[in-house]
Amino acid sequence: MRNKENPGSIVFGSVALDTLITPAGKREDLLGGSATYAALGASFFTHPVILSCVGEDFPPRYRKELEEKGVSLQGMEIREGETFRWVAKYGDTPQDLEVISTCQNVLADYFPDVPAFLRKQKFLLLANNTPALQKAVLSQMEERPFVVWDTMKYWIDNYREDVEEMFNIVDLVIINDEEVRILSGESNIFKAAESLFKRGVSRIIIKKGEHGAIYYSSHNSLLLLPAYPVKECLDPTGAGDTFAGALTGYLEKNGVSPSSLKHALLYATIIASFTVEGWGVERLIGLDKTAVERRLNNFRQWTRV
Amino acid sequence: MRNKENPGSIVFGSVALDTLITPAGKREDLLGGSATYAALGASFFTHPVILSCVGEDFPPRYRKELEEKGVSLQGMEIREGETFRWVAKYGDTPQDLEVISTCQNVLADYFPDVPAFLRKQKFLLLANNTPALQKAVLSQMEERPFVVWDTMKYWIDNYREDVEEMFNIVDLVIINDEEVRILSGESNIFKAAESLFKRGVSRIIIKKGEHGAIYYSSHNSLLLLPAYPVKECLDPTGAGDTFAGALTGYLEKNGVSPSSLKHALLYATIIASFTVEGWGVERLIGLDKTAVERRLNNFRQWTRV
Repeated sequence: MRNKENPGSIVFGSVALDTLITPAGKREDLLGGSATYAALGASFFTHPVILSCVGEDFPPRYRKELEEKGVSLQGMEIREGETFRWVAKYGDTPQDLEVISTCQNVLADYFPDVPAFLRKQKFLLLANNTPALQKAVLSQMEERPFVVWDTMKYWIDNYREDVEEMFNIVDLVIINDEEVRILSGESNIFKAAESLFKRGVSRIIIKKGEHGAIYYSSHNSLLLLPAYPVKECLDPTGAGDTFAGALTGYLEKNGVSPSSLKHALLYATIIASFTVEGWGVERLIGLDKTAVERRLNNFRQWTRV
Repeated sequence: MRNKENPGSIVFGSVALDTLITPAGKREDLLGGSATYAALGASFFTHPVILSCVGEDFPPRYRKELEEKGVSLQGMEIREGETFRWVAKYGDTPQDLEVISTCQNVLADYFPDVPAFLRKQKFLLLANNTPALQKAVLSQMEERPFVVWDTMKYWIDNYREDVEEMFNIVDLVIINDEEVRILSGESNIFKAAESLFKRGVSRIIIKKGEHGAIYYSSHNSLLLLPAYPVKECLDPTGAGDTFAGALTGYLEKNGVSPSSLKHALLYATIIASFTVEGWGVERLIGLDKTAVERRLNNFRQWTRV
């Protein structure tokens, strides 16, 4: 693993303080945001660097938690004002989500400035964020990194053109089944993926939540993976971001090959399964590699025929 | 494989003439019914015997098609009147099903009478049918067979008590994810299955359509299997029945063990994937073992990590 002076994947996304209401209760100002979950996912394989911005109210104990997991905060600006805040309520299923409020705060006029020492990094995860800012980050890189790109329905619905421009400039698209259907106009997800191949996408991972994930490439590489069987989903927040981060971290550590992509998907599936078992990032913070390997061995046994 | 004088699994269910409307067009009086699809699924491994009843209008060409696939019709009574007819319309997804009409015809007052030569058969598939009649068949058996039981939402909604009685008298329950949630009152399918274990079920297969299937036993055996990637679903009718039949046929041929159950689930997944690619049973009628093995090898490659 690299040390902090030799940082790994750049993770561009939000750092937030989340207030969450689930059938199990309510928690306020939890450490959250797409970059946070993704960096924690990646931290099992590398020293990811968060590229984002927080307010002066960002709790020092959260900085400490992230740094202790090997996450570099050298790209996380601190600005006058409050940290991005997100308030959401979940029903009985993860899909049953009501966003109560989104206060951009310091993120409202944040424009990313990639620090000079990061501009030759080889792996860049564009976690859930405005497509225009994702492009701005990529344009500041001095050498073309391997780009993993995550998006969500909100951007597809409201910034369709920007989203479609990404197809030609990223290396790996992570998307969920509903989103790939909307983007392609195809109800069959394999045909949906193939229609994106024609528009410039070369590798796609379709996330299906409790039903698993699919990796499909324009070179006909295919992996079908069920989800890890989770019995208690306490708080679904951040599972997709963790997934994207773990995947990127694995690829940085092991290189990009068809075989490595498959293993990256496997680890992403396993690490994301822990996220939903606790509030916010608590399960990821307390997680060690032994627990990940144990779950991975079980999963292999349960999926082998 | 057994010859016709030495019949294999009994498949109790309906034999129907289906009229189907899908986005691809309309077909009238297709060979259908739960026992038909199930017997064709089982025919890849054994000589299944259909236990059912048809009218005098049942086309001789359909008899011929079934017999040529090794399906025995010695338990299929012919009665005065018309064959059971089912008319249904599908939208863009298999879930988007509208049943336009169900005419029981000769099945309305049919009470199964298991022929003497079948009463010691070792495998019995109770395909989709009235729970009371399923019990009647089982009660006529002179030796306790291994019983695979398929049900559907209609019976759970309208004959709940009869359905729950089956838990203690069958060996393997096949059910879909929506049904297991309704029956158990649990939204998490693993907890749902565990709640049925407490009520007498020992082995359960949860079908999730395009998302695959799960085998889970009260002895902690677990298999998670994605679905075979089907790009063209022309007519979803009978996929679940084919699945149940292939599974039962495989178990009859290979015995019931944890390993054999896993392979049975694998073959059921593969064989059912063909059903939806053609109208009615046409794809199953034209299917040979080589095509099944080829798809199975691909599937193994696409699911291996």
